Amino acid sequence: MKEIRVFCPATIANISCGFDVLGVALQSVGDEMIIQKVAQKGIRITKLTGQNLPTETHLNVAGVAGLALLAESDYEGGFEIEIHKKIKAGSGIGSSAASSTGAVWAMNALLGSPFSKLQLVKFAMEGERLASGVAHADNVAPALFGGFTLVRSYAPLDIVPIPSPPQLWATVIHPQIEVRTSDSRKILKTNITLADGIKQWGNLGGLVAGLFTEDYDLIGRSLIDHIVEPIRSILIPGFDKVKSVSMETGALGCGISGSGPSIFAFSKGEENARNVARAMKEVYTKIGIDYDVHVSKVNVEGIREI
Amino acid sequence: MKEIRVFCPATIANISCGFDVLGVALQSVGDEMIIQKVAQKGIRITKLTGQNLPTETHLNVAGVAGLALLAESDYEGGFEIEIHKKIKAGSGIGSSAASSTGAVWAMNALLGSPFSKLQLVKFAMEGERLASGVAHADNVAPALFGGFTLVRSYAPLDIVPIPSPPQLWATVIHPQIEVRTSDSRKILKTNITLADGIKQWGNLGGLVAGLFTEDYDLIGRSLIDHIVEPIRSILIPGFDKVKSVSMETGALGCGISGSGPSIFAFSKGEENARNVARAMKEVYTKIGIDYDVHVSKVNVEGIREI
Repeated sequence: MKEIRVFCPATIANISCGFDVLGVALQSVGDEMIIQKVAQKGIRITKLTGQNLPTETHLNVAGVAGLALLAESDYEGGFEIEIHKKIKAGSGIGSSAASSTGAVWAMNALLGSPFSKLQLVKFAMEGERLASGVAHADNVAPALFGGFTLVRSYAPLDIVPIPSPPQLWATVIHPQIEVRTSDSRKILKTNITLADGIKQWGNLGGLVAGLFTEDYDLIGRSLIDHIVEPIRSILIPGFDKVKSVSMETGALGCGISGSGPSIFAFSKGEENARNVARAMKEVYTKIGIDYDVHVSKVNVEGIREI
Repeated sequence: MKEIRVFCPATIANISCGFDVLGVALQSVGDEMIIQKVAQKGIRITKLTGQNLPTETHLNVAGVAGLALLAESDYEGGFEIEIHKKIKAGSGIGSSAASSTGAVWAMNALLGSPFSKLQLVKFAMEGERLASGVAHADNVAPALFGGFTLVRSYAPLDIVPIPSPPQLWATVIHPQIEVRTSDSRKILKTNITLADGIKQWGNLGGLVAGLFTEDYDLIGRSLIDHIVEPIRSILIPGFDKVKSVSMETGALGCGISGSGPSIFAFSKGEENARNVARAMKEVYTKIGIDYDVHVSKVNVEGIREI
């Protein structure tokens, strides 16, 4: 195999009580990439459509992630990468992670899969480091593993796949405003109360249990963030209203996707997820802010060949 | 049925990363109680052996928990309670919870089970309030439900049962020193860093996932407490040594049981658990502190009739 075409899913990270540890991959939102094995050493981004992003290898997250893989490989040749972005950069649903993971997953496949998924996570994290200054794993892990993933630890890196119940759907609305990841991180407090911490890990335990037992009510009861959402939601106009109408419409839970500005909701079944989308749209239509909306089943497979 | 004899298991709470939320019931350590349905209203503690504890109904945790149940019941009669303590008060393995839950579980059985387990937890929590000033649920919940239980939330009370892998064994050593729950709580800091919080909920998520998937290695990797153990362990002489020899002997993880002074370790299989017990004993023998040691499978059933 010389060439492979892949679907690179969008991902939701910082899922409510799972701040910095829990992410999930989406089924129907993602980029497409075509990766070709070539004799010439190194990595070249030959085409990039859909977004205005750098194509110099060292400035492109797919390029940097790919170089991290090449540095650990004994392969003597190189790769050419075409990226067709469908995920908007800065939307908070793992745009950079989709490109980084797509590159390394495809390259690994073309090389006969010498690397484990965990190794691929590490390579893709270098793309995240370029994008945000922090080599976080909470978007790249679900993109590679599919379903929900828990980043239990960074040192050593420990990724725990968590199953997703069959009827779990996500609705994501992306209001077209800019929230920089760095700003969004700056306003977080360095300290939290122990009491809030206890609530947070109680909820995360409940959420993980609910995902294993397919208990949608428990998932809903656990999708609470006492720590980050109250602070970060201030940066997202309309957040409180979007959340309240989502919950009234039947969402299991609702929160900030990644560091925003996208807002996600989980629902049981497609119909509920579509109703939530309608309710979310109305909020931003009234406020007069443009938006994109995605309704998607959870993607249990991760990146795939298309 | 007029009379019932029950086994009331000891429990480990504050399981490492599960501070204040995660507890587990033990199979081979626990009290025995005999509860009799009588015509005379109210509750009387007719016998109490094994420990020097008050037998006045209002001063005894079983009495107080039982009164909480009676207050919600339309039963016109009363109960007489015999308590045979095998669990030492103040040991940190749920002595008060065993008595409180034993009383309400048995009374409920004698009344034809009008109350749910969740309601019984609430009644038993009144016994905990008497014992420690705080109506906590992290010992009474596993005593009633069996296995591991997560107290996801107190308002409203939400108890999530978590399965236990078949080969999970606990070793508990109780050094005969006094650590008051109130002192142990006082030295905790009100604030923690967000960074430590993230590690803690990452580990709790990993632990819950490991319990569901019977992944003993993951359970072991997740049994880490970045927040409470570093502070509370100062109150327990020999803690660091007990922990290090337990881990060297093959324990999956080791931490403070409840608010101490007991120290627990989890192991895969009985043999490992017994080896850990031997290693723990040596530490306190050398230091010259008396101890009790318990080796027990996880009790997946909770309180039972005997």
